[in-house]
Amino acid sequence: MSTEWSSTQARPPSDGGPSLDLVLHLDRSQGLRHGLEAALREAIRSGRLRVGTSLPSTRTLAADLEVARGTVTAAYAQLTAEGYLAARQGAPTRVRWRPDVLASEEAGGDPVPTERWDLRAGWPDPASFPRQAWAAATRRVLRGAATGAFGYGDPFGHLHLRRALAGYLGRAREVRTRPDRMLVCSGYTQALDLLCRVLRSRGAKAVAMEDPCAPRYRRIAEAAGLRVVAVPCDDDGLRVDVLRGLDVAAVVTTPAHQYPLGVTLAPARRTRLVDWAGRTGAIVVEDDYDGEFRYDRQPVGAVQALDPDRVVYVGTASKTLSPALRLGWLALPGWLVEPLGEAKSLADRGSGVLDQLVLADLIERGDLDRHLRLLRQSYRRRRDLLVAGLRERGGPPPTGIAAGLHAVVPLDLGRTESDVLARARSLGIALNGLGDYWYDPGRVREQALVVGYGAPAGSAYQPTLSRFLDLWSGDDDARGRPRR
Amino acid sequence: MSTEWSSTQARPPSDGGPSLDLVLHLDRSQGLRHGLEAALREAIRSGRLRVGTSLPSTRTLAADLEVARGTVTAAYAQLTAEGYLAARQGAPTRVRWRPDVLASEEAGGDPVPTERWDLRAGWPDPASFPRQAWAAATRRVLRGAATGAFGYGDPFGHLHLRRALAGYLGRAREVRTRPDRMLVCSGYTQALDLLCRVLRSRGAKAVAMEDPCAPRYRRIAEAAGLRVVAVPCDDDGLRVDVLRGLDVAAVVTTPAHQYPLGVTLAPARRTRLVDWAGRTGAIVVEDDYDGEFRYDRQPVGAVQALDPDRVVYVGTASKTLSPALRLGWLALPGWLVEPLGEAKSLADRGSGVLDQLVLADLIERGDLDRHLRLLRQSYRRRRDLLVAGLRERGGPPPTGIAAGLHAVVPLDLGRTESDVLARARSLGIALNGLGDYWYDPGRVREQALVVGYGAPAGSAYQPTLSRFLDLWSGDDDARGRPRR
Repeated sequence: MSTEWSSTQARPPSDGGPSLDLVLHLDRSQGLRHGLEAALREAIRSGRLRVGTSLPSTRTLAADLEVARGTVTAAYAQLTAEGYLAARQGAPTRVRWRPDVLASEEAGGDPVPTERWDLRAGWPDPASFPRQAWAAATRRVLRGAATGAFGYGDPFGHLHLRRALAGYLGRAREVRTRPDRMLVCSGYTQALDLLCRVLRSRGAKAVAMEDPCAPRYRRIAEAAGLRVVAVPCDDDGLRVDVLRGLDVAAVVTTPAHQYPLGVTLAPARRTRLVDWAGRTGAIVVEDDYDGEFRYDRQPVGAVQALDPDRVVYVGTASKTLSPALRLGWLALPGWLVEPLGEAKSLADRGSGVLDQLVLADLIERGDLDRHLRLLRQSYRRRRDLLVAGLRERGGPPPTGIAAGLHAVVPLDLGRTESDVLARARSLGIALNGLGDYWYDPGRVREQALVVGYGAPAGSAYQPTLSRFLDLWSGDDDARGRPRR
Repeated sequence: MSTEWSSTQARPPSDGGPSLDLVLHLDRSQGLRHGLEAALREAIRSGRLRVGTSLPSTRTLAADLEVARGTVTAAYAQLTAEGYLAARQGAPTRVRWRPDVLASEEAGGDPVPTERWDLRAGWPDPASFPRQAWAAATRRVLRGAATGAFGYGDPFGHLHLRRALAGYLGRAREVRTRPDRMLVCSGYTQALDLLCRVLRSRGAKAVAMEDPCAPRYRRIAEAAGLRVVAVPCDDDGLRVDVLRGLDVAAVVTTPAHQYPLGVTLAPARRTRLVDWAGRTGAIVVEDDYDGEFRYDRQPVGAVQALDPDRVVYVGTASKTLSPALRLGWLALPGWLVEPLGEAKSLADRGSGVLDQLVLADLIERGDLDRHLRLLRQSYRRRRDLLVAGLRERGGPPPTGIAAGLHAVVPLDLGRTESDVLARARSLGIALNGLGDYWYDPGRVREQALVVGYGAPAGSAYQPTLSRFLDLWSGDDDARGRPRR
């Protein structure tokens, strides 16, 4: 029995019908028509041809396989009769049968949140994404981009974006940098991962991180082979005095708005921080995760401006546009430019270029600034509603509210985070407690909730806030008991 | 001297003029107008306000700073007189002065290739990117995407794309997978980096790679802490027999079209390869980098189909659409799904979602298949022109030409790669020799060029090919000497 392989891959389409790449194992020894039927049946049964897939027109397939068109027509008719295919006048023939074994394919899909009311810290309003502006900029970019933009790009990021960002960061965040000191990356996560890997490859053993901080950042450093030393924070931010005496290659910090406490690094500590770095040769990694959102009259520039040779500034589009873009950037000291570029090149050979060009377009046209002004108004309103709601219900005021997208809401004596969070889960409210961020969650500290007021999409904020306030004040039992 | 910080950040815009975030250090002690002038001057001198930047309208800035509008107008006029700003009727006032220290900002930008004629292997035609189809799909995606698509996404990739890819790979490449076994990543580079890091963290010490292969893949494995063992190839592809006795956790291979030799892994070796993996517990990493481009009548399915539990299939959009997208995917054995997802989450928290949704849209509408048919025709024509041109000029025929985007062109006895490549460089032709890919380039082997006929953009192919043929046949001295 001689088996031959044939395929529609081998030739250009012979008509304008739907084109489709098929790998058919065509056994010509059993006769062309039966061989074709068997090949199609096997492809559908094995799941290679999936339910809903359009087949090529009979003319195309016949030309590709070099058989008579009638042979294909007959095979299609037979499989339609057997229920494998569905034919409809004027439309392509489609696969209608699916093997049972693939019924499990839905498993492991996107996690469906069981919480209906989302107040997770660090999540911006997904409804705020400027869809129209993004679509318009994409159109402009695809019309105007040079052909070379569609080849392999610069691992540091497209020069257009690095230029636009250097200008934007200078005026908006006081960052002192130049396009040739910038690296575009996939969000803060990749920035931290690349930095940790470069430090590790240069012999570093440990890095310092704020306590509390996002636990995933500790995991990133540890996965890169670094030990994490926790440094406490107080009302003036990171305890810079504690850094003295530590043998660490870097400290990772959130000076503009400590995550999650929400405090600002005090001016005197900023100076002492860069002094420490200059003295010890360590670097400061400045995570400016929500530096664009400041609601009071005291804008706080980047620490990076105090010493661009010792501070690595990291910013992203995750809060200002969308975390789904995975766009971030580093402003680097000169001596780190080459090692970071090499690490980025070996990690993914550069970030996606189209999104970079679209962001550059939005910055250059002033669209990003306009968007940010509206966003700031919207988040400030949300914050004010939260603060007013808490005040109405009594209890201590929230902290960390001068900036950002979250507030720290202290719990009264006698109520524990775990009790309140369990209650929140049962009510379908997604929420964090400060305990989620401590280096050693077992030690008893201040009991407080971290309320991310950015997370609810658009008009979902008001009802979400109401649910939260009911939970917070103990009015959450809606099952029969009248409201106080 | 009391210094106050003020900024347009703090308030919503009070008119429709251009919005702009400024960090101005406004020293009110020297009088408002002089303080504002000094603050603007300092911001421009320090480079924080860059040349070309539009300033807010006088009305907006006055409202933001809570000063009289006339104060701002006067300050703008003064700085315009001093040459820092440029004012034009009906247009925003702009920064026109740039500090000298930033004149070096252009350094380190995109590398400008000195070669005008590009025949680098592995580069697809950048002019083939379907700009209109991509723009139209982006519009559809931005109109139709659920709000949740703009939050933090699934580190495995968006389920829409994983579904579309599982179907596409099944019918086009015979891959046996399911959406919950797929991971979307940033091109082949990231796929290999993540795999190496996962293997290393599970105790692996070494991986096998084909010799020759792309040198950057060896660097990726070594950067992850793995030793690379080179395994030779012959006319039937990877020498599977050499794997026996090696203590490696994985072998990285290009079965459809060995890179760069262009041979196909023989059927018997495919079976022996997965047998070896099953026996030793190693994995096979199948780099299907140009599997979509096959010009003869023998389509070759993926090795992965022989044993989806031991073979990791890796594909990308780099050759079919553009390497600038940085979109790739892995079809994983069940036991590798969780560790790879964790590694991806810690590396960059998932790939950009918009590009993923656009690609899913193009696959589902059949646009990708249509695009591929046209591309295949175009590349086959290019290959045929190369083969015909070489035949006309005499000499041994090129090899590895049944598929892909490059051909191996042997050199006559007595001509060395280094001589020809040096000559190519002097003529502005970017080209590779086989020597660029050997594990130990010092050892003398067959002298051959690797000609990437995909690289020239659109109609640049013909003149580029002519230049190359002249070089190859020694007719390249156009400076005075008449053509033979």
